[in-house]
Amino acid sequence: MTVHETITNMALAARKAARGMAALSTEVKNRALLQMAEALLAQRANIQRENDKDLLAGREKGLSAAMLDRLHLSDKVIDSMVTGLREVAALPDPVGEVTEMSRRPNGMQVGRMRIPLGVIGMIYESRPNVTVDAASLCLKAGNAIILRGGSEAIFSNLALAKVLQEVLVAENIPAAAVQVIPTTDREAITTMLALEEQIDLIIPRGGEGLIRFVSEHSRIPVLKHYKGVCHIFVDSSADLQMASDIVFNSKVQRPGVCNSLETLLVHREVAAMALPIIGKRLAEAGVELRGCPETCAILPYAKAAVAEDWPAEYLDLILAVRVVSNLDDALDHIAQYSSLHTESIITSNYANAQRFIREVESSSVMVNASTRFSDGGQFGLGSEIGISTTKLHAYGPMGLKELTTKKFIVYGDGQIRL
Amino acid sequence: MTVHETITNMALAARKAARGMAALSTEVKNRALLQMAEALLAQRANIQRENDKDLLAGREKGLSAAMLDRLHLSDKVIDSMVTGLREVAALPDPVGEVTEMSRRPNGMQVGRMRIPLGVIGMIYESRPNVTVDAASLCLKAGNAIILRGGSEAIFSNLALAKVLQEVLVAENIPAAAVQVIPTTDREAITTMLALEEQIDLIIPRGGEGLIRFVSEHSRIPVLKHYKGVCHIFVDSSADLQMASDIVFNSKVQRPGVCNSLETLLVHREVAAMALPIIGKRLAEAGVELRGCPETCAILPYAKAAVAEDWPAEYLDLILAVRVVSNLDDALDHIAQYSSLHTESIITSNYANAQRFIREVESSSVMVNASTRFSDGGQFGLGSEIGISTTKLHAYGPMGLKELTTKKFIVYGDGQIRL
Repeated sequence: MTVHETITNMALAARKAARGMAALSTEVKNRALLQMAEALLAQRANIQRENDKDLLAGREKGLSAAMLDRLHLSDKVIDSMVTGLREVAALPDPVGEVTEMSRRPNGMQVGRMRIPLGVIGMIYESRPNVTVDAASLCLKAGNAIILRGGSEAIFSNLALAKVLQEVLVAENIPAAAVQVIPTTDREAITTMLALEEQIDLIIPRGGEGLIRFVSEHSRIPVLKHYKGVCHIFVDSSADLQMASDIVFNSKVQRPGVCNSLETLLVHREVAAMALPIIGKRLAEAGVELRGCPETCAILPYAKAAVAEDWPAEYLDLILAVRVVSNLDDALDHIAQYSSLHTESIITSNYANAQRFIREVESSSVMVNASTRFSDGGQFGLGSEIGISTTKLHAYGPMGLKELTTKKFIVYGDGQIRL
Repeated sequence: MTVHETITNMALAARKAARGMAALSTEVKNRALLQMAEALLAQRANIQRENDKDLLAGREKGLSAAMLDRLHLSDKVIDSMVTGLREVAALPDPVGEVTEMSRRPNGMQVGRMRIPLGVIGMIYESRPNVTVDAASLCLKAGNAIILRGGSEAIFSNLALAKVLQEVLVAENIPAAAVQVIPTTDREAITTMLALEEQIDLIIPRGGEGLIRFVSEHSRIPVLKHYKGVCHIFVDSSADLQMASDIVFNSKVQRPGVCNSLETLLVHREVAAMALPIIGKRLAEAGVELRGCPETCAILPYAKAAVAEDWPAEYLDLILAVRVVSNLDDALDHIAQYSSLHTESIITSNYANAQRFIREVESSSVMVNASTRFSDGGQFGLGSEIGISTTKLHAYGPMGLKELTTKKFIVYGDGQIRL
């Protein structure tokens, strides 16, 4: 069988499975999720044996220590997958919820019922635990999923899929509800992206290169975020201790992730006071500051920023810093350079807080809080399948509801249109 | 200026306009809409003079009488655009609505605020009144719109845009909020579809050819419906008089539109009773019936259906008819041939009604009501900008809310992530 045939058959099987999955009861889905948790524990040794093959191949290919670490299905990572499955089982089932039901003048009742999207294609890099996390969320939302992980994790992903599929079959759910693509051939991706009749949504997770490739080649809608260039604006009325705490947390707590801070904007009126407080603590933590001329005049240890610093996603202990004249200047800077991920204002001024919330169009807009909170779990969505920085369908962290859609339902008693 | 430059400049101007439009007050938007209504009335003669150019060119090109009728901006059509503008002004403003606000364990308040999508590209055929209808809905939802109508309506569309833009400028709203592409060159469409940085959503309205072309060439998300192959299933427990009334209404009231009935499914137990009642009335109204062998055995005046009849969207006085064994068979037929537009069951059985509502995945699913109700106005959305039969972002009739998205907003008081 060619790669094209393999993928097409998988997609057809997923489409077929999806129809029945829309009608699965919450009880059946939850039992499967809990059984999957048990099965991962029971088959830990088998899974880790397959994972060892990936680790060995990775070492031979010369993967970095960080990459190998991401690849490793340690006891701790398996335990966290088990916990994740149990958490998803405990989340409310989004399917079947009816909202906006109203009676029309002719007596018909019209409302909207939440239903699964159908078939979801997930394309991701490295971490094999994504296989289980994504499969569990898709199953809970009643979707079939086709998973295409990184080639370096192929043995791990197939081993995990096998465990999940055995549970599905035991629970009378089609095995095609969760499928891992068994080939590392890149043609599998391009084939998948053309199957618009079988796949309803593509979610890529990984570096900007992967996401651009997927979105340029896909005939299927893609939920994506390219990067997170998050800003904090320290307003003239900010509590400077709060500003320092929030900036430090946003930049330093986990610099390698998309909701970490990349650019700090400071109101000119407080720059001479605020920057030394904020800058000293960052510098002591090893953060390299790249400032505008005014910033460098205040902080002698800051380097001069160049044009490339303002749109940069460092994902590292580096921070761009700019002094601005006022809120309008800050809003202009954000409108120009934001990646539509997360921005926060530190202020004690009511009107400025409200303007910032209203006028910044990013997917998460905050007042007096760390950008690091921009996360499905922190926002109370339960688990998160990704973050969207494009405005269609979902915007911001995506939970179970974002894996569903709503259809219109009509209860009539013989109405005809006049 | 090349076509490419013209379109790119229009899109950049729209993007710039969109930022300010998100912050427009409801009062300003409504005043502009009401002034547009006045301006259309005041400039009726000028608009009709430009429309005459299109009609003359259309006659010379040999357009059909039906096409010329769709093109004609009669007094009645202009009056209906005026009414439409006033109705949109009266609709609630979707922008700024905050929902799902809750307090997280750390005290942060997290909610979602409805915001405009940004810039919308509309590609449509023939009817110039779409120019005003779409522009008014986009303006009310705070979006900038770029309109590309049919080449045969170019003078009419430009005349309408001029009237709308004059009002925008007088109301201090950027003229780029509503732009009609001034060239009929097809390169304008392909250029537009590649401007993913400037345009957030493409809405095509027209024949299947146009919609396929747009969706195959677009790098921007597309809200589309290809066709409406609507089904009615007459269950064994149906009130046959009600079934006859609803089928007749669904097929005959306006056969040329997407929510008209194309395939009738009848439960075998009542076929011999139901089909003569339903069929006679349809035949008397000039409807050609194309039946399965069982149908033809009951209705001697029915033609034999062929395989192509089941997926057909006739948009004409033709109806495909099939006898099925039970609800499951009806659901299978619908799953195979439905265009995900609208399906209705006629039944007095509670369990079957609930199963149909739950298991049919089309964007509108009905019990005991005419498929002709599948429409934004009939569903209570106010005006409608189109119908989506793809599940992402919007599914079914789209009103003002579907021209918006929701961002997360966070009100904190110094929270940092631990």
